[in-house]
Amino acid sequence: MGGERKISSNVLYKGRIINLKVDNVVLPSGKKALREVVEHAPAVAVLATDPDGRILLVKQERYAVAETLLEIPAGITEPGETVRETAARELREETGYEPLDLEEVLRFYTSPGFSTEMIVLFSARRLKYAPLEQDYDEDIAVERIDPESLRDYLGSGMIRDAKTIAALCWYLHHEHGGNE
Amino acid sequence: MGGERKISSNVLYKGRIINLKVDNVVLPSGKKALREVVEHAPAVAVLATDPDGRILLVKQERYAVAETLLEIPAGITEPGETVRETAARELREETGYEPLDLEEVLRFYTSPGFSTEMIVLFSARRLKYAPLEQDYDEDIAVERIDPESLRDYLGSGMIRDAKTIAALCWYLHHEHGGNE
Repeated sequence: MGGERKISSNVLYKGRIINLKVDNVVLPSGKKALREVVEHAPAVAVLATDPDGRILLVKQERYAVAETLLEIPAGITEPGETVRETAARELREETGYEPLDLEEVLRFYTSPGFSTEMIVLFSARRLKYAPLEQDYDEDIAVERIDPESLRDYLGSGMIRDAKTIAALCWYLHHEHGGNE
Repeated sequence: MGGERKISSNVLYKGRIINLKVDNVVLPSGKKALREVVEHAPAVAVLATDPDGRILLVKQERYAVAETLLEIPAGITEPGETVRETAARELREETGYEPLDLEEVLRFYTSPGFSTEMIVLFSARRLKYAPLEQDYDEDIAVERIDPESLRDYLGSGMIRDAKTIAALCWYLHHEHGGNE
């Protein structure tokens, strides 16, 4: 670490879910380079299994990519909220379930070449139906998939979201058993 | 699809690897909302196995997240280049190996809530040593990992990059065998 040294930083945009800054840096070689950085609040994603052992996915339109995607429930931390609180809130908003058992299992960056976004992945169990209202600008449908069909979902290309692929793979290796 | 209808679009930044636009949309409910979109060229990532069957990872500083990460080789398409050509070029630049066998295996979005970035994942085999010069602003070290230790890498939290987690999981299920 510490190879690239910032010499100046310009914030070009401060928005609702992202900020944009462009930094000038000096490389270890002494050469200069530009670094475009999208600042994004920490986010959470929740791999939740319902009382019947099925995994909850949400289907929603994603404007940026002009597609409807199947993803695990996820969302962005709000000011003053811990990632655990965000995970519980987002799961309730998007699926109606409150998790009585919530465990952090993995942390990863979604696109470290330009974005600060980090996702904290939680595993949620012992779900209790206690819905919260969805965000006004979200239109989300819940799907439940059987763990037995997970490999088919992953193999078929139906899952086109990186955090969901990472989470379902984690599940296959750690929860579903039979792989070790 | 087609639920959110664009009513206006403002390009706020056109940069080196990303553009930023902010669109006003009408939701299916008739309400209005803002959509912040980072435009990013299609990218590729390469899961390459060397002649000894080890998987090639690259270690590099990621300025945006202020960390040194272990990732599979990856990069952005250049104008006029197919994703297959990008995959072959990036692998040579970052590891020195030219793949004689390159197969597309998966496509996914890294952060569909705000970014258009899509990654096309290739599996590369039959590697021939034929290095290309690295980009002047990249400082990359190659690591080789044994497929037997993949689960440990994934379980230990040492891999903190979503595309790399997705790719290594794909490998475990499709290539390494013994899981079906």
